[in-house]
Amino acid sequence: MTASAHLPLGTHLLADLSGVDAAPLRDCAALESLLRQAAIEAGAQVLHGHFHSFGAEAGVTGVLLLAESHISIHTWPEAGFAAVDIFMCGAARPQVALDIISTALAARHRALHTARRAPPGQAIAG
Amino acid sequence: MTASAHLPLGTHLLADLSGVDAAPLRDCAALESLLRQAAIEAGAQVLHGHFHSFGAEAGVTGVLLLAESHISIHTWPEAGFAAVDIFMCGAARPQVALDIISTALAARHRALHTARRAPPGQAIAG
Repeated sequence: MTASAHLPLGTHLLADLSGVDAAPLRDCAALESLLRQAAIEAGAQVLHGHFHSFGAEAGVTGVLLLAESHISIHTWPEAGFAAVDIFMCGAARPQVALDIISTALAARHRALHTARRAPPGQAIAG
Repeated sequence: MTASAHLPLGTHLLADLSGVDAAPLRDCAALESLLRQAAIEAGAQVLHGHFHSFGAEAGVTGVLLLAESHISIHTWPEAGFAAVDIFMCGAARPQVALDIISTALAARHRALHTARRAPPGQAIAG
């Protein structure tokens, strides 16, 4: 048995948030702060974060690497759109993180797809 | 009109690779090199990369932030399993990147889910 942090069983939420005001989708520092808060509230451990602004009027692309996998966000302020991924293994609660992000961005529409990530059979000894 | 790099229309591949030998799933530097090669071959521009090993015998979690969104990998050597995400907007070709990664890891099984990421209606002026 080896020492990966969690079993290879995870939930991956793909959330397409739309009807979002442009300003918060341009604010690189605020988005990083929001995702870090969401990760912590979800019970995840942040290993690394990097957020990149494409320019003062443009979007942001950013990611947090977690011991439980990752959270990413890619924003298009001109379209009021953000693509958010929350992939968490272990006991962390991805839906908690998504609710925090979605509420903070005041998204008027949310299209959510949930994927279960695991090897075939899923019954893997840790 | 603002200056985000690409329209908010993207393809997100979620690939669960299994039946992979443990050694390449533990090799943090080789995985980073592989994902960078895959991004370039797919026509994407790498903005940032970070790869973390959970220990010599354990898995790796890593991500490349792209101008076109991201590629991530999370590995569980003890299960022969890797969860790979390739999310690309614009003209980049995510399937090319996935084929490179899947072939290099000699995955004996691949479960692929493809998600289209876009605001409702999808016809957004750039």
